[in-house]
Amino acid sequence: MKYKLVIEYDGSSFHGWQSHAGMICVQTEIEKALKQVLHEDIIISGSGRTDKGVHAHGQVASFDTKINIPSTYTFMRSLNHFLPETIQILSVQQVDDEFDARFSAKRKTYRYYFYKSKIEKPLKKGRALRINENVSIEKMREEVQALVGEFNFASFVASGSGKTNFVREIYSACVIETEPNEYYFEITGNGFLYNMVRIIVGTLIDIASAKISYSMREIIEFQNRTKAGKTAPSYGLYLEKVDYSL
Amino acid sequence: MKYKLVIEYDGSSFHGWQSHAGMICVQTEIEKALKQVLHEDIIISGSGRTDKGVHAHGQVASFDTKINIPSTYTFMRSLNHFLPETIQILSVQQVDDEFDARFSAKRKTYRYYFYKSKIEKPLKKGRALRINENVSIEKMREEVQALVGEFNFASFVASGSGKTNFVREIYSACVIETEPNEYYFEITGNGFLYNMVRIIVGTLIDIASAKISYSMREIIEFQNRTKAGKTAPSYGLYLEKVDYSL
Repeated sequence: MKYKLVIEYDGSSFHGWQSHAGMICVQTEIEKALKQVLHEDIIISGSGRTDKGVHAHGQVASFDTKINIPSTYTFMRSLNHFLPETIQILSVQQVDDEFDARFSAKRKTYRYYFYKSKIEKPLKKGRALRINENVSIEKMREEVQALVGEFNFASFVASGSGKTNFVREIYSACVIETEPNEYYFEITGNGFLYNMVRIIVGTLIDIASAKISYSMREIIEFQNRTKAGKTAPSYGLYLEKVDYSL
Repeated sequence: MKYKLVIEYDGSSFHGWQSHAGMICVQTEIEKALKQVLHEDIIISGSGRTDKGVHAHGQVASFDTKINIPSTYTFMRSLNHFLPETIQILSVQQVDDEFDARFSAKRKTYRYYFYKSKIEKPLKKGRALRINENVSIEKMREEVQALVGEFNFASFVASGSGKTNFVREIYSACVIETEPNEYYFEITGNGFLYNMVRIIVGTLIDIASAKISYSMREIIEFQNRTKAGKTAPSYGLYLEKVDYSL
């Protein structure tokens, strides 16, 4: 039987999604809870890794088990009982045997939260990036439009990613104001390169504060990481959702 | 010289605003930082106490000092340096000698954050209250209207508050949806009784899930705490701002 999990986690407490020797990570915590409930050694497949500090409102993972789970709701409650409060399963669903959280994913949505302030706000700590008051949100909104379409995103990939195909399609990108001086950047695409969203955000901020004089379109065309901006810190980033149908 | 501070804090780490023997509280932390910067023993006056776990986006405090602070901005940076990351000063302003954060306050605004879900969400932990999916937000929105006006709020005060005058004026009250299934209740008034906002929220939820059959108007008229609902937990509550002019 194959099952799909939708997972929320507060990335602050974990060394990312995937196991590193001796480090506490989200994947291992879920596998430990599955072992407690199903008494079976289970390896889950995540839709993708998230780095240390990155949060998820809707990470997806799948796994195979010999067991036919009679009530997915009861099963979810048991799993959540064994999980720390910082990781909880939002839904469990039986899926086709061919389903794989990573390879079946059709599109992903990320959000990056930030706010304008002179002061590091206590209630935003580990949750959103502080930016300077001189960053032009209007400029950001103009520049994000250039991201929509199918492009080679080689300018927006961390070195050592191991990938060679940098072409991805972005379906939408926008900047939303949630409260005065509080924002998120939301981007949906068919896939993302390693650190791609964080580099895009760092570049947007650098363009919108005139630290970079190239436009987003030019930086895409350069296909050169050194032309883009800084990698924005992990703690503003949220894996929002993963879609499996278009 | 008299100064006014606007303060944000994450209430999770503190035993409330005011000093209790041996407990870490917000007021004491600020007084300790003031001592570091001004080398003077200073007692600050807060606009009001907040309980353990209650947050503030805009608490206000005032204090007297012999020192004429040359740059309030530099002073604020120094204070924030000595404060923990969970408490930060958002602004410092010199004010009239007659100003007092508590007695000069004209109105206060509180927010109470909550969300509908079967699961306790990791990213809402200590920040918002989970409510059941059967709570009617529409019903809540109808009922909050009854709060607006000048009433005796004896039904909404924790016993042992020591107050005898329960009349307060509420200027506005509303329920805002920020994301699907995520909300806050916002209320502005000339003052609030001990636990008043938390009891109002608990009552609204009980009415909107048909656990209480009285209307908000009836409960106000009863002037009897036993007719109102539960006291909602502290961690959903935020002191949003304090106004000193109308």
